[in-house]
Amino acid sequence: MQDYASPHVVNETISEIISTFRENSPLVQCLTNMVVSQITANVLLAAGAAPAMCDTPSESRAFAQIADGVLINAGTPNAEQYQGMREAIAGANDSNTPWVLDPVAAGALAERTAFYMEALDLGPAAIRGNASEIGVLAGSSAGGRGVDATDSVDSVVGPARVLAKRLNATVAVSGATDIIVSPQRISRVASGHPMMTKVIGTGCALGALVAGYLGSARKAGQDEHFAVVAAHVHASVAGFVAAEQYANKPGSYAAAWLDALFELEPLEMAQHAYIMTEAL
Amino acid sequence: MQDYASPHVVNETISEIISTFRENSPLVQCLTNMVVSQITANVLLAAGAAPAMCDTPSESRAFAQIADGVLINAGTPNAEQYQGMREAIAGANDSNTPWVLDPVAAGALAERTAFYMEALDLGPAAIRGNASEIGVLAGSSAGGRGVDATDSVDSVVGPARVLAKRLNATVAVSGATDIIVSPQRISRVASGHPMMTKVIGTGCALGALVAGYLGSARKAGQDEHFAVVAAHVHASVAGFVAAEQYANKPGSYAAAWLDALFELEPLEMAQHAYIMTEAL
Amino acid sequence: MQDYASPHVVNETISEIISTFRENSPLVQCLTNMVVSQITANVLLAAGAAPAMCDTPSESRAFAQIADGVLINAGTPNAEQYQGMREAIAGANDSNTPWVLDPVAAGALAERTAFYMEALDLGPAAIRGNASEIGVLAGSSAGGRGVDATDSVDSVVGPARVLAKRLNATVAVSGATDIIVSPQRISRVASGHPMMTKVIGTGCALGALVAGYLGSARKAGQDEHFAVVAAHVHASVAGFVAAEQYANKPGSYAAAWLDALFELEPLEMAQHAYIMTEAL
Repeated sequence: MQDYASPHVVNETISEIISTFRENSPLVQCLTNMVVSQITANVLLAAGAAPAMCDTPSESRAFAQIADGVLINAGTPNAEQYQGMREAIAGANDSNTPWVLDPVAAGALAERTAFYMEALDLGPAAIRGNASEIGVLAGSSAGGRGVDATDSVDSVVGPARVLAKRLNATVAVSGATDIIVSPQRISRVASGHPMMTKVIGTGCALGALVAGYLGSARKAGQDEHFAVVAAHVHASVAGFVAAEQYANKPGSYAAAWLDALFELEPLEMAQHAYIMTEAL
Repeated sequence: MQDYASPHVVNETISEIISTFRENSPLVQCLTNMVVSQITANVLLAAGAAPAMCDTPSESRAFAQIADGVLINAGTPNAEQYQGMREAIAGANDSNTPWVLDPVAAGALAERTAFYMEALDLGPAAIRGNASEIGVLAGSSAGGRGVDATDSVDSVVGPARVLAKRLNATVAVSGATDIIVSPQRISRVASGHPMMTKVIGTGCALGALVAGYLGSARKAGQDEHFAVVAAHVHASVAGFVAAEQYANKPGSYAAAWLDALFELEPLEMAQHAYIMTEAL
Repeated sequence: MQDYASPHVVNETISEIISTFRENSPLVQCLTNMVVSQITANVLLAAGAAPAMCDTPSESRAFAQIADGVLINAGTPNAEQYQGMREAIAGANDSNTPWVLDPVAAGALAERTAFYMEALDLGPAAIRGNASEIGVLAGSSAGGRGVDATDSVDSVVGPARVLAKRLNATVAVSGATDIIVSPQRISRVASGHPMMTKVIGTGCALGALVAGYLGSARKAGQDEHFAVVAAHVHASVAGFVAAEQYANKPGSYAAAWLDALFELEPLEMAQHAYIMTEAL
């Protein structure tokens, strides 16, 4: 195992993973909510991936078999979409496509929480949510206020570690500092900007990036923990750069975030990010 | 009753309501159409509220009980969403959460018009639409051209007054000059800019703001007529300010509108607006 | 027949069709996917049309009878939307409203491909897709990678000609150079910019513009082949102009594209475009 405690090595690893992601342009199938579909697709395109929002039960399974990564986000789920999600998960599992669960509003609402609990046992490669959502899945929290977290990121580090170990998956908790926990390793990414919370879909789109990065890394035989970290670095460093120009203007900021996701060079992003990694 | 004929008192009232809204950051549940979901959420975030688009029959009732305000907008309604809307209305009524009806394309289409007529009797706190839509609900018009008004705002002032009285609700008619009618009071807001009609969802997002402002005001014991006026002031003054920069560029204008919704100070907005209020 | 080989005459024809489109402000009913609904509506508004996304089975037929043009785009189709599309096509045919088929991901997915094949026989005025999608409909390709083309535009010119003749419709193939084939005429439009592929929905929105231009032209008795060409000129010249400012920034580029769609004058667009037309 490489010495990932060294910032230099981590930066190089992250930079390489981002470069590979852009070369691969992974096909990311998003089963996501109608509110963030457009920005999610635009984020994937800007970052370097290819989005496809195929989510119907009759087609989602076949599509998951050709996709490189799959996102499951039940933000506004109707009955047909739940079924589409189950089919997509089955298709992803059939073909060893990594899939990501984004448990929007877990705890706050009963039906979706039951679905998330069912999905946990189906083998997600990663789970990405806010502290309250992850706390609910880990059994340590009752959930937040609708889609907003009321728990602190730090309060769920322990439960997230247990969850990651139990599922043999990577668990990512989004906040001012993001925490990414895998069975063997924990990383913290402290970049980003509060303005990201004033634009809808920055978190949901990050979930899609995680699916794309995992798909690209799995194909290339790269480390999957750092693939998830790289997705967070890509999103959050772009978020920081956008704020330098438009820290107080959410409409202009949203466009500037997409611009930065597209423009920033891999090494530049890795060096700009504050990443701390420890073995577990 | 305060002397609301005085512009100074009105400005102070509006400014206070806007400040309270930003402090409260009301949780606004939007059951709305897929076309405007993203901009509606972004408008709520920029203005200072917290959006949640929970609209499924299995969850919308429970969510309405924790939301501060609920928007019902049947712009692209499927069978499941209609049911979700009925459940959300029931949940809102259970917990005295104000809910707003936006009767998109009333009159032009039969099924939704029937739904709106049914919803009128369920106790909306406010109704917001264009002149043709309000005219249809009030029984004075046959409806517009699809989603566009073909009636003038002035032509529906009388019918809107009758409707407001009958429902004991606030009726807001959007146009170059917006008219807000409650049983005891009528206000006119003449701000905004024609460019607002070149960006999709400015009207639908205003409906969501009305729900948020009513939710915040009801909690704070503020006047609900002026809460609806404040929502219009917030949206339209930001629309005017955005046009100063981008009066001929709808893409840039849309971002600038969000910027202004976020940046403008409450007193600044109140002073910038042309508000005329009369007792009825 | 006018001598359309002359660039001067073509430019004048295109310019006239664009002017008429803006005067008519055609009402375009879009049955489209949730990912691109917002940008499609904004493109129609910016270009000068009036969008309405009415897509439910209970209302889409009646609406198609008042619309000027109808777009059928099965990008994220659920069972109810398929039914809504069938109803809208029936309504459009009842009232001689031109309708456009956008066969998103034809070939890659079975259910939608079957639907497209069924729709072909119902009399679309135009079909707009990428080379792989058109190739699938014409029977010359097995389809692309999800929603992306893997065939070249040139490789489907022959099959597109056969298809256009068989259906007596206009077939438009989008690419770096767009090809528009009608039974009697073929045009190539080489404007646009690669950045258009980094913004979601530029192709889907073009399909909506085609529906609007056909609706406007049919009312005005203008040439329908050149109406489809004009839609492509409007979209692609705006795409080129936007890139002059933001060639490397997809977020800003998307807004600049809308700005240009709104601002550019008809003659300016026609002269800016590279259009080559031949009789067949």
